[in-house]
Amino acid sequence: MTHDPNCIFCKIIEGDIPAEIIYRNENVVAFNDLNPQAPTHVLIIPTLHAENAAQVAAISPTIIAAMHKAADEIAAERELDGYRSVFNTGAGAGQSVFHAHLHLIGGRGLAWPPG
Amino acid sequence: MTHDPNCIFCKIIEGDIPAEIIYRNENVVAFNDLNPQAPTHVLIIPTLHAENAAQVAAISPTIIAAMHKAADEIAAERELDGYRSVFNTGAGAGQSVFHAHLHLIGGRGLAWPPG
Repeated sequence: MTHDPNCIFCKIIEGDIPAEIIYRNENVVAFNDLNPQAPTHVLIIPTLHAENAAQVAAISPTIIAAMHKAADEIAAERELDGYRSVFNTGAGAGQSVFHAHLHLIGGRGLAWPPG
Repeated sequence: MTHDPNCIFCKIIEGDIPAEIIYRNENVVAFNDLNPQAPTHVLIIPTLHAENAAQVAAISPTIIAAMHKAADEIAAERELDGYRSVFNTGAGAGQSVFHAHLHLIGGRGLAWPPG
């Protein structure tokens, strides 16, 4: 489906729930994470509703590519010294909103492993 | 460029350096990380040489999509209870091989933040 009226991220895209939107084009919207884990912690979401990264990839390679391009553009604009981009797929991996979202994290040292 | 003769991951693709390859198609190759951080820790790489996720996305949306699809297929095959997929972009984020690679991590609890 392209829009889920019960999805909080779809509501952010529609403007029905406020968010600090920092980037937007026809394929993606990006906004600050409400519980930031780093000086830069942005969520990049597709404008269509899909549950996870693999579903976005299956529906539209263009849109999954746009998500990674958006991450890179935001990181470049902020002159980050590298960044980490993370998808959680499934509740067992910590996914809490089932509208695919790419975490862009940077602006501090990043430990390994990633969780 | 589509192949870098000095790149260790290009050499793995060519079979010139051994790796535990677990998945391969025309767009991606996946193999076990040499320093696994979880029961499943697989690196998924594009068969073309590109430095990071954004470069892959810019060169070929099909291939960045194939990387996410591969992660999902491997996770499904292993019946993982969710998984995390991670790109590090830049040395400042911990990237050590400059051939894009998606870390597929699962098979244990995953803490937050991701590093």
